Amino acid sequence: MADPRFFPSRGPYTLAELAKIADATIAEDADPERRIRGVASLETADWEAISFLDNRRYLDTLAASRAGACLIRPELADRAPKGMALLLHEKPYRAYARVAAAFHPEARPLAGVHPSAVVEPSSRLGVEVHVGPGAVIGARAEIGERCRIGPNAVIGEGVVLGADCAIGANASLSHAIVGARVAVYPGVRIGQDGFGFAMDPTGHLKVPQLGRVIIGDNVEIGANACIDRGTTDDTVIGPGCIIDNLVQIGHNVRLGRGCVIVAQVGISGSTRLDDFVVIGGQGGLAGHLDIGKGAQVAAQSGVHKDIPAGTAVGGTPAVPIVEWRRQVAVLARLARRRADPVKDE
Amino acid sequence: MADPRFFPSRGPYTLAELAKIADATIAEDADPERRIRGVASLETADWEAISFLDNRRYLDTLAASRAGACLIRPELADRAPKGMALLLHEKPYRAYARVAAAFHPEARPLAGVHPSAVVEPSSRLGVEVHVGPGAVIGARAEIGERCRIGPNAVIGEGVVLGADCAIGANASLSHAIVGARVAVYPGVRIGQDGFGFAMDPTGHLKVPQLGRVIIGDNVEIGANACIDRGTTDDTVIGPGCIIDNLVQIGHNVRLGRGCVIVAQVGISGSTRLDDFVVIGGQGGLAGHLDIGKGAQVAAQSGVHKDIPAGTAVGGTPAVPIVEWRRQVAVLARLARRRADPVKDE
Amino acid sequence: MADPRFFPSRGPYTLAELAKIADATIAEDADPERRIRGVASLETADWEAISFLDNRRYLDTLAASRAGACLIRPELADRAPKGMALLLHEKPYRAYARVAAAFHPEARPLAGVHPSAVVEPSSRLGVEVHVGPGAVIGARAEIGERCRIGPNAVIGEGVVLGADCAIGANASLSHAIVGARVAVYPGVRIGQDGFGFAMDPTGHLKVPQLGRVIIGDNVEIGANACIDRGTTDDTVIGPGCIIDNLVQIGHNVRLGRGCVIVAQVGISGSTRLDDFVVIGGQGGLAGHLDIGKGAQVAAQSGVHKDIPAGTAVGGTPAVPIVEWRRQVAVLARLARRRADPVKDE
Repeated sequence: MADPRFFPSRGPYTLAELAKIADATIAEDADPERRIRGVASLETADWEAISFLDNRRYLDTLAASRAGACLIRPELADRAPKGMALLLHEKPYRAYARVAAAFHPEARPLAGVHPSAVVEPSSRLGVEVHVGPGAVIGARAEIGERCRIGPNAVIGEGVVLGADCAIGANASLSHAIVGARVAVYPGVRIGQDGFGFAMDPTGHLKVPQLGRVIIGDNVEIGANACIDRGTTDDTVIGPGCIIDNLVQIGHNVRLGRGCVIVAQVGISGSTRLDDFVVIGGQGGLAGHLDIGKGAQVAAQSGVHKDIPAGTAVGGTPAVPIVEWRRQVAVLARLARRRADPVKDE
Repeated sequence: MADPRFFPSRGPYTLAELAKIADATIAEDADPERRIRGVASLETADWEAISFLDNRRYLDTLAASRAGACLIRPELADRAPKGMALLLHEKPYRAYARVAAAFHPEARPLAGVHPSAVVEPSSRLGVEVHVGPGAVIGARAEIGERCRIGPNAVIGEGVVLGADCAIGANASLSHAIVGARVAVYPGVRIGQDGFGFAMDPTGHLKVPQLGRVIIGDNVEIGANACIDRGTTDDTVIGPGCIIDNLVQIGHNVRLGRGCVIVAQVGISGSTRLDDFVVIGGQGGLAGHLDIGKGAQVAAQSGVHKDIPAGTAVGGTPAVPIVEWRRQVAVLARLARRRADPVKDE
Repeated sequence: MADPRFFPSRGPYTLAELAKIADATIAEDADPERRIRGVASLETADWEAISFLDNRRYLDTLAASRAGACLIRPELADRAPKGMALLLHEKPYRAYARVAAAFHPEARPLAGVHPSAVVEPSSRLGVEVHVGPGAVIGARAEIGERCRIGPNAVIGEGVVLGADCAIGANASLSHAIVGARVAVYPGVRIGQDGFGFAMDPTGHLKVPQLGRVIIGDNVEIGANACIDRGTTDDTVIGPGCIIDNLVQIGHNVRLGRGCVIVAQVGISGSTRLDDFVVIGGQGGLAGHLDIGKGAQVAAQSGVHKDIPAGTAVGGTPAVPIVEWRRQVAVLARLARRRADPVKDE
């Protein structure tokens, strides 16, 4: 179960209470009054812990697990060991998220400004804001209520944060207007100059970057990720987007609602993603593209063309995913044939 | 137009004044005394703003634009809407850079050392240097005149910065000799140990990294990029190089003049780039290579061999770009043929 | 030789002393009493410096070198210029590492807490710990003896560091238990939330990240690299691992002993690497994989399947390296044939 050194715990909860929290159904043979003390993985859980199964790959782990309780899809219930109390839910990972949050609500530092922080007098701080040691709040910045600014983070002049934002240690923001409940992880860089140069053998001339970064509500931005501000218009991150570590987002890029950008992806300048686009890890998008709603890009793919809505692509240059799989298969076959000249099809 | 919250504005300027600033020609039917109040994109510009067209992809946007004025190539002038005042220039983006800088000169913080900064007494600061809150200047460091050291940035012992450098928030430099007018963006890491280990199953033995990082004049280094110092010789970044966010430059790498290194590129140890090499986003170069003058590497390519001067390459492993395009085409054709066996060529 | 501005020097040493330090054999015609003042590369060394040859690519450089002495494999000894004093060793780079460390032992800042650092009273600092300017040590953290905490670094609540760790400038750690002699380079992010969301069109629900990061002894973690903490179990980095700059390690990943992870690699959540795995630069591993002992992944490869022990793979999707080379060869041949239709094989 979670190390109390880092995660103070609530509970215990009865199975009935957890079913209510998770909006799950208690399996027939489970005792609603059974007490559960915490969450754990299938491998490490003991009889007082609740776990979850979300990936069929781990069915064997389930069978060997000593977890007292488990969140599971109804159709897999018969794969659990006898005596494990089951909570049935169509989306066990989602249910687990609620249960885990009940045991371990997010820690919140005390409100107040640490004496070593530097807060410019012309800035405005909402109620119950926490400003950590060494943090810097620039002139005219506006920090929404209950925001938490981590140690040594830097909020630039004029930056606006909505309510309940969490800014990680050593992160920096400038030229940005940020919504509510945005999580900026440690080391994130937001609002610096984009890569804008009029290139020329006589010398690359820097183009003033006069746009902003606009971030919607409920966005998460992973550690050491970078989001450049716009050249003339803004760089925009739609509400509900989740952006993983070390992602690069160029100037004037626009993300719609709920996009999922996995680690180390790069999105070049002026490319636009509609809602709910998913880009796999290390994928790269050229500039000035339009990526349609719900499009999916496989990990490491290189996208050089617009993608229609709802389309999955893969490869470099990226093609529809079925085509890419065929390319992979045909190349593998040709290579095998070459290795073994007597064998033919 | 640029948000005055972040970008104080000069102007207005007359069309004649802007033509002079940009070294552009006023189109015949435009009024040289017309007043322009700022810059904006074609999409958002109003009749008091000047915009630019640099990419034919946006000709439709030009046609629908309400911009009062526009920088444009002469041969595209007839594609602009009636009434738009045109400034003609062969390189509109370059001309725009000058106009934008006239409206919005780079903001410069006031000279002086913030009381929360830590400046070792043995360091030397030139005139009009700005040292932001929480910044640290190590022993014997030399900071050139008019340098700006951002909040919580760390300048290591003995580091030398030429005049007019700008070091971003939370950046760190050590073991580095830096020229004039160098921009180091937030979170950049310069001068740390390279990845030097004598590898062995009995334990990887760390090799002391005894070189430096030498950076020429007018270099730009993007957010969270990393440049390791040399092992015995130096890592060298030539004058005028522009390096984008999250780039990795290994120990002993040497870049000539004016190289362009796009985001998330990785250059392995001891590889040398001659002048004006361009590496597309997420490209990777193996170690100990020689990349000739003006060579170009397509995005995401993996370079395992030397590249002759003036050659463009693509793919992994990278081959001349024409060859790579043929490989892409032939593989696509084979995959289609396999999908539809009755069709043949 | 190393710039005294950055690297104070010991020595000189006689060839006999260096042979002992490096566990090398003095070549017959070399004078054991010859004095050497420092280390340098073959290109820049003068007659008072010792260099090394580890890569046959540089045999011409050796022939032209003016180095006074050189560490070299016995079978290449006859390629050195006359008069160069040779120290013979089967692993010259390893021998060089010891010699270089003798001339330039790692600099250690003075013990003590800088007055601008913020150290929570409930934390515990071992003897001879150095805490640099602006560094922050959170509540209940435990810092082992002789640790060095760089300027503006942030050690989170409850974090444990073993003895002799070095934490770079602007790095941040949270939710982590770290062994002895671990080097965390500038800008590293350890212990932040993993990318854990129950994704859903109605909104991506954040899953509490309740694991830790456990790091073994003698680990090196490169600049701006990111290691997320586990979801329920821990993220584990085995002893002796070396991790290069800008690497991404997702939640619940487990690395065995002595793994080598080159720059910009991404390892997705819950993937496990056995001992001595090597991942080339920019390689990507999907989640939930098992990578066997001593497996090797070529640079830029994309791994979607488990890899058996001792296997080398390449390409995206990665296949055994021999197969990948064949794929590359067959595709190149097909593309050439297509380009020149009259030529056939």
